Amino acid sequence: MTERTVGVVGASGYLGGELLRLLSSHPSLRLTHAVSKSHAGATLDEVCPWLADGHEIVLESDPGSLDVDLAFLALPQGEALPVVPSLLERGTKVVDLGPDYRLKDAELYRATYGREHTDPDGLARAVYGLTEVSREAIASTSLVANPGCYPTATLLALLPLLRRGLLPSQIVVDAKSGTSGAGATPSPSTHHAQAGASVNPYGGGHHRHAPEIREALADLGGGPSSAALPQVTFVPHLVPVVRGLLCSIYAPGVEPDEVLRWNEALTDAYRASPFVRVGEVPRLPWAVGSNRCYLATEAAPPSGVVYSAIDNLVKGGAGQAIQNANLMAGLPETTGLPLGGLGP
Amino acid sequence: MTERTVGVVGASGYLGGELLRLLSSHPSLRLTHAVSKSHAGATLDEVCPWLADGHEIVLESDPGSLDVDLAFLALPQGEALPVVPSLLERGTKVVDLGPDYRLKDAELYRATYGREHTDPDGLARAVYGLTEVSREAIASTSLVANPGCYPTATLLALLPLLRRGLLPSQIVVDAKSGTSGAGATPSPSTHHAQAGASVNPYGGGHHRHAPEIREALADLGGGPSSAALPQVTFVPHLVPVVRGLLCSIYAPGVEPDEVLRWNEALTDAYRASPFVRVGEVPRLPWAVGSNRCYLATEAAPPSGVVYSAIDNLVKGGAGQAIQNANLMAGLPETTGLPLGGLGP
Amino acid sequence: MTERTVGVVGASGYLGGELLRLLSSHPSLRLTHAVSKSHAGATLDEVCPWLADGHEIVLESDPGSLDVDLAFLALPQGEALPVVPSLLERGTKVVDLGPDYRLKDAELYRATYGREHTDPDGLARAVYGLTEVSREAIASTSLVANPGCYPTATLLALLPLLRRGLLPSQIVVDAKSGTSGAGATPSPSTHHAQAGASVNPYGGGHHRHAPEIREALADLGGGPSSAALPQVTFVPHLVPVVRGLLCSIYAPGVEPDEVLRWNEALTDAYRASPFVRVGEVPRLPWAVGSNRCYLATEAAPPSGVVYSAIDNLVKGGAGQAIQNANLMAGLPETTGLPLGGLGP
Amino acid sequence: MTERTVGVVGASGYLGGELLRLLSSHPSLRLTHAVSKSHAGATLDEVCPWLADGHEIVLESDPGSLDVDLAFLALPQGEALPVVPSLLERGTKVVDLGPDYRLKDAELYRATYGREHTDPDGLARAVYGLTEVSREAIASTSLVANPGCYPTATLLALLPLLRRGLLPSQIVVDAKSGTSGAGATPSPSTHHAQAGASVNPYGGGHHRHAPEIREALADLGGGPSSAALPQVTFVPHLVPVVRGLLCSIYAPGVEPDEVLRWNEALTDAYRASPFVRVGEVPRLPWAVGSNRCYLATEAAPPSGVVYSAIDNLVKGGAGQAIQNANLMAGLPETTGLPLGGLGP
Repeated sequence: MTERTVGVVGASGYLGGELLRLLSSHPSLRLTHAVSKSHAGATLDEVCPWLADGHEIVLESDPGSLDVDLAFLALPQGEALPVVPSLLERGTKVVDLGPDYRLKDAELYRATYGREHTDPDGLARAVYGLTEVSREAIASTSLVANPGCYPTATLLALLPLLRRGLLPSQIVVDAKSGTSGAGATPSPSTHHAQAGASVNPYGGGHHRHAPEIREALADLGGGPSSAALPQVTFVPHLVPVVRGLLCSIYAPGVEPDEVLRWNEALTDAYRASPFVRVGEVPRLPWAVGSNRCYLATEAAPPSGVVYSAIDNLVKGGAGQAIQNANLMAGLPETTGLPLGGLGP
Repeated sequence: MTERTVGVVGASGYLGGELLRLLSSHPSLRLTHAVSKSHAGATLDEVCPWLADGHEIVLESDPGSLDVDLAFLALPQGEALPVVPSLLERGTKVVDLGPDYRLKDAELYRATYGREHTDPDGLARAVYGLTEVSREAIASTSLVANPGCYPTATLLALLPLLRRGLLPSQIVVDAKSGTSGAGATPSPSTHHAQAGASVNPYGGGHHRHAPEIREALADLGGGPSSAALPQVTFVPHLVPVVRGLLCSIYAPGVEPDEVLRWNEALTDAYRASPFVRVGEVPRLPWAVGSNRCYLATEAAPPSGVVYSAIDNLVKGGAGQAIQNANLMAGLPETTGLPLGGLGP
Repeated sequence: MTERTVGVVGASGYLGGELLRLLSSHPSLRLTHAVSKSHAGATLDEVCPWLADGHEIVLESDPGSLDVDLAFLALPQGEALPVVPSLLERGTKVVDLGPDYRLKDAELYRATYGREHTDPDGLARAVYGLTEVSREAIASTSLVANPGCYPTATLLALLPLLRRGLLPSQIVVDAKSGTSGAGATPSPSTHHAQAGASVNPYGGGHHRHAPEIREALADLGGGPSSAALPQVTFVPHLVPVVRGLLCSIYAPGVEPDEVLRWNEALTDAYRASPFVRVGEVPRLPWAVGSNRCYLATEAAPPSGVVYSAIDNLVKGGAGQAIQNANLMAGLPETTGLPLGGLGP
Repeated sequence: MTERTVGVVGASGYLGGELLRLLSSHPSLRLTHAVSKSHAGATLDEVCPWLADGHEIVLESDPGSLDVDLAFLALPQGEALPVVPSLLERGTKVVDLGPDYRLKDAELYRATYGREHTDPDGLARAVYGLTEVSREAIASTSLVANPGCYPTATLLALLPLLRRGLLPSQIVVDAKSGTSGAGATPSPSTHHAQAGASVNPYGGGHHRHAPEIREALADLGGGPSSAALPQVTFVPHLVPVVRGLLCSIYAPGVEPDEVLRWNEALTDAYRASPFVRVGEVPRLPWAVGSNRCYLATEAAPPSGVVYSAIDNLVKGGAGQAIQNANLMAGLPETTGLPLGGLGP
């Protein structure tokens, strides 16, 4: 198996740190460079003492000079735009974990983020990296837009149902995320004394992940005209756990026997997907540390419900990024990735 | 102000303990008796060292011999049935915090709890004690069926909207409860190592509170025929906090300007209700320790959302029970009850 | 009972908010002014929607113009120094919840905080407000330096033992505090994703509360020369709870029968102190929301151990401040303060 | 590398589940049998859906018939006694994760557990499996008594200091453990509503791990007569995290420059130990999921402090058991074990 060199840009954030953690036991992707503006000059050992390996690497400040086969970008919104074109130009493949290449529609990007997209060529080339749904396109691209954590959990649950025409016109996604999903920068909403004994809905009317979910349903839903697409309500909540994300997805008006067909549709869709398990209602620790998504269906009359649980930093971020990089490197998608979660 | 004597039956459970806590600073309801089968013979000081007062009271074993003006029953399902008739017969007023007198329809009781209701007379007399909605009936009855915590939070949010015809045909209630709502008896689902870093949906298809919510909407919804009632999906989740309950209530297909009318409807409905506040999206600690219910509306297109937050043991249990007892005793409903929560 | 007007300076911090919470149900201290630089112009209703009362008060920006009988200052270190003298001069009594007047030794102040103390007169007048130990001095002063949360829990446990000569030469205080003790300003160490699943020792070698503990032991220990004072090791830890503080205090080399004498000493010392309870090993929720300190002794050979539990924001801050203000106003010390905790 | 077959007895407890989790990615120890009285007949897939592998294995009821090269026993106290002799007799090597073979002194066993030890031959053969300290004896025995989680963290910190004569006469160990350390059986002390917002000391006077620590210090401390051994106070606390254990270990009277020598002693002792890191004060998540022990020293005058952090289920249980099994099988001790923790 040929070894590829990889670099992580944005190494001091939570997604960057998770990339480092997972790469440190990867047999074929060898971390050679890590970039962090805020921690340039420090060794990985100083910044991430919990890593298994790679401690001697010194953090660099400039992503432009990266000389690697593949770069992972874990940057705040907007910051990947000046970096991606130059990396692609020099032949470096890119998995971008930020939001800059997820929305294919530049108008929607402007409406969502309040600024112009400055790399329309990159946007046109980028493949939305929901691995289980787009393996072939991912394997043959040089730029993957890695999905957000909420869209990953939601879309893996909904796409197989949408493709079989099993969804009603209204869908409600009540999402509960651990606080690591909000990133490493302290803020009032993630201050322990505010978040540690509460459950806080946020951004119900305008969360940036809602457009991503809707566009992906339209693009990947397998053909139905946009008129037939369900309308999706998406409301995220912060819950007092550090890792883990659960979406409770409601389809009002779905009968219990239709929920049985949901289960078949999900089981069929993921038969060949080692990182998706369809079974009983999951607990978050099953997913923590693992690249798996756990799906379960339940009849809660008058609704059908799908529960979808992931580790927001793994399948919802760094794990799926590596899963995509594996495909881009011609490796089996499971290479170097944890299947099992911490349990119980 | 005349003092009334009161007793608490089921004093060693969490709702019983909360009654003791709140009564210990009540100026007019004087605790004279406490009953607990499991702790009979102990003093309150030994069982509840955190109480402000009443430490010398010795726990009794037999609820049948209670000699008080008003009795609070905080017993497991079924256990109030043999106690209530004899208390009423001797002229003791009763607030029952358990589920035995909540469902007016004896058939529904059988279907929900798998046994016959043995006190149809009591059932006919019982008033469902959602204080803000039924003050007059509560003030003039001798038996109140105190609502469950989930129905309290849900109904206070939905009833004013239903009465104004502002609800669509489908409603989804995604409820998140602290673990004290599951009671004081250890079980796998409330074992810290299982519940402490997870979010666990439970009983989506068959939770006992769903029939209570539906019956109350029909009974108290102000007139619409049952055909016009919305269908309600109710799914509870355990979240890793000890106290506090948040319902995220979704009405798919409701436009943002209709949500503004919701806000008016709620504000109008609770103008004279000191324990309900309509305002911004609440945080659980605002409600913890307080008898308040915090309501907030939000447009999350294509849905309208109402958030409802309470302390599951106070407004969701012991506090509302005392609020009802106040009315039954001719006292102002706020007497002795905490308005303010712990914050922030 | 004459009513006194009071003001809170630093109203938007956690201690300030807790003062507002407790004052809103106080029968004799009437909040008329609240000062907050960061939130000036807002109403209390906007800043603290969980309060029971006082919602119409508008936050002011200037503490210098306060016209009240008594002012509570809850300000960062150093910021009380320019405020206290002018308040005292106009006849306003002051309870300072910050650290500026706690250390009587100006040298120690400089060594601890790295700056000169600019109000030596105030320092000379200030009474260290550990209520149970200094009631008379507190009642007759116009300036109280309210103790820190850690010193309160530690000193209430140690002083009665020290006074009876029951302490050995070395004492170890392992303190565990909820994160609200670190204040309302977000920081990496209180970021939920950092603090929510960890236990973090901090500042073991240089925590600012250690000098406060040592000076108070010397000043209030009842006579022993400093040679006879025990040496105290103090190491604080942040634990993932929001409220509550537990000190585990070890005295190596103390025999089990000596621990029995400890229990007598503590029981005797606090016989007339309604806010201190000596009994079994406490749980934090017993103290949460209450102004009580719970003390328990245990033989853990070869050490004796005292456990001391408080709510860091109440007895460890705002509650004790009001307890002191009660004495300064000629009121019973328990006036308006919660005895009971949330339990269980 | 020759593959060995292994079995896990007590597979449905937390330590048993953790063995299954770690073994499912082990390259040389192949799980072929799992025994659980309470879940016999179920597949691993049903009992532990979070595992990476081994799902088809059916749980058995009888440990006596195990046909494997090496058996891990994760049983309650007393239950290994009838199982170990028969396993050894048939040539199966054993790593016992329970307490039955840890105390070499049968008298101490009786005093600690209140019953006779029924396998004195096994007791004589058993090697105390603190890997870093006893590699050779472990590699050549057929019975390892795997240390408890608290002794592992404590002894790794203290033994190198004791061997160099750097410890004073009194040591205080204040230990904080996540609730998974208390096992999978629900109880009041681990009920979420009791444990989720508290810090609870327990068993300070009589915890079963104190004799284990003391005996191991005497046996492995490298020669000093028992008169020279320090006296150790050990008090465990439950903290509201699920995984992770931190010991704060105090040596009163140790000067800051002596703490520097501690650091040298620890660094020297573990230079060749990949699972022990000596560095800055650790955070629990560094250790979670990993087999590492993190040690740090700090001067907190007048004491020296060592902090020791592990994952109680990994280095404190299943991970160290596999580390020992690796040596018993002639494998490198790191084989199949996670070095890196979840961080940050």
